[in-house]
Amino acid sequence: MVIDFQSAFLFVIKRSSMSPSIVGFIGFGEAASCLVQHLSSQGVKEILVYCSGKTNRPPYAPKFRSAVEASGAVLVESIEDLTKKSDVIFSAVVVSSAVETGLLIASHLKRGTLVIDINASTPKAKKQVSLAIENSGGSFVDANLMGAVSIYGAKVPLYCSGGGVSRFEKAFSPLGLSIEDAGIIAGASAAVKMLRSVVTKGMEALIVEAMTAASLAGVRKEALRNICDPMDATKFSNFADMCLRTDVLHAERRAIEMDGAVETISDLGITPLMAIATAARLRASAALGLRDKFSLMGKYQADQVLDAYVQKIESSS
Amino acid sequence: MVIDFQSAFLFVIKRSSMSPSIVGFIGFGEAASCLVQHLSSQGVKEILVYCSGKTNRPPYAPKFRSAVEASGAVLVESIEDLTKKSDVIFSAVVVSSAVETGLLIASHLKRGTLVIDINASTPKAKKQVSLAIENSGGSFVDANLMGAVSIYGAKVPLYCSGGGVSRFEKAFSPLGLSIEDAGIIAGASAAVKMLRSVVTKGMEALIVEAMTAASLAGVRKEALRNICDPMDATKFSNFADMCLRTDVLHAERRAIEMDGAVETISDLGITPLMAIATAARLRASAALGLRDKFSLMGKYQADQVLDAYVQKIESSS
Repeated sequence: MVIDFQSAFLFVIKRSSMSPSIVGFIGFGEAASCLVQHLSSQGVKEILVYCSGKTNRPPYAPKFRSAVEASGAVLVESIEDLTKKSDVIFSAVVVSSAVETGLLIASHLKRGTLVIDINASTPKAKKQVSLAIENSGGSFVDANLMGAVSIYGAKVPLYCSGGGVSRFEKAFSPLGLSIEDAGIIAGASAAVKMLRSVVTKGMEALIVEAMTAASLAGVRKEALRNICDPMDATKFSNFADMCLRTDVLHAERRAIEMDGAVETISDLGITPLMAIATAARLRASAALGLRDKFSLMGKYQADQVLDAYVQKIESSS
Repeated sequence: MVIDFQSAFLFVIKRSSMSPSIVGFIGFGEAASCLVQHLSSQGVKEILVYCSGKTNRPPYAPKFRSAVEASGAVLVESIEDLTKKSDVIFSAVVVSSAVETGLLIASHLKRGTLVIDINASTPKAKKQVSLAIENSGGSFVDANLMGAVSIYGAKVPLYCSGGGVSRFEKAFSPLGLSIEDAGIIAGASAAVKMLRSVVTKGMEALIVEAMTAASLAGVRKEALRNICDPMDATKFSNFADMCLRTDVLHAERRAIEMDGAVETISDLGITPLMAIATAARLRASAALGLRDKFSLMGKYQADQVLDAYVQKIESSS
């Protein structure tokens, strides 16, 4: 009984302490190695690393072992060993093995362990891992890197949701991590990150397609200036709002203009993947048949357009 | 001989005069009617309008006739009549009949007439009309509306190229039109306008797709904020430059992330048209196989990436 009291007391101390005791990392890529170095420099004494990547896996090469040790961590030989020893575990593997790794962690988990999944996996994958971790008595954080580690380092914004977020924030914000709490639903923050990616990576694809075509047409400089100047003069959030409000009115006419762009880019010798998809997306908006309703409304908000789109989509499915 | 001298003298006077004498408009949509009203208010005495649209065509309805007259113009019954009488002709019809209209103008043209094609047609269409007009002794301007007439009115930026641009600018800039001279090649400015449209309308399509998905996932507000905040804090031209420079390095990894987005958006119940195209466009960049070359280069410009892309595309076609 005395022993039980003691462990309970120690457990409470540990849980309420700001500094996590043993932190494990599964994976040692750019993000993980940056975080290990940072946490070590912030005084986290015991950091364990397990890696089963294509190149670095047990038995580890001496060079890899030295690199991990130089960053302030110790390599362990199995995920089971790491999981049993750690109070906090970061899962930082390749996307394709994120779920498998999460389920393995769950199967060896100590009760009360905090598991932070920083993989760029889907909301569905995050939810699946969350469920397994919580069923094993752990806390889960769906954490999402909202910028490049190469730019931000360990201060990369982490957009997080899940049952373990407030615990994660309390323990790691004081150590310098940039944690934003987006609620208790695992998968919600991954969905936000993913939809942001659709827009930013989509813009990359648009710019690459248009500028390659412009280069082939001999109008690169002029095209870049005409694309960028009006956008530089506009606040992006205002542009996005305008897009949502006018899509419901002008999608069909704009789709027809895109057909011309498709023809022009094809003639230049590249497949207008983005222009074709744009024409199709605009036609999908037009096909919802909300133009007349909204043109009679005069003033309305982007939210009303999205509500109407969702209603049409949900009623037709 | 005396008469010949006189007409030559008058012709020179007319050509060098700032105010064009008889201006004809083919089409009377939003852009044309706005320009007619503006030019009339600026003192252009004789403005002719011919229309053969779906609703407004000879014999014109009294209501349409009054509207045209109220704006300061006179309706004519045939394109032949308008073309023979006008010194300057604006072609402002629907895109699908832009070429047909241009060829009709060419077939009735007086020598020396200035033809301004403000249709949103393809560079190919503009070149075809330009050739016909110049073969008939006219001057051609490939003019492109770079903004909405509903916002800018008659001051809408006109991005122009073709043999007649400097004449157009001399005569109409003093009357308040915003003319930008983009060189003598008809079709070049239409190409720029079209490629700009690929990016702006593509961004509309991306935002609509992502925000509809976000609404279906119940994370609309968070997604909009996370999409807009970083873009609001970034100059678009810097973002575009970054996209071009990093596409050559990270396209493949980003395409894999897009696969997750495709899955996520599909699960929400909409077809991820833009996300699918983005993954394909990024894979097309990766397939050019320039990653290793550029990762060894250290510092390089976006221009170098585009040059390398174009070289690969041209050598493979």
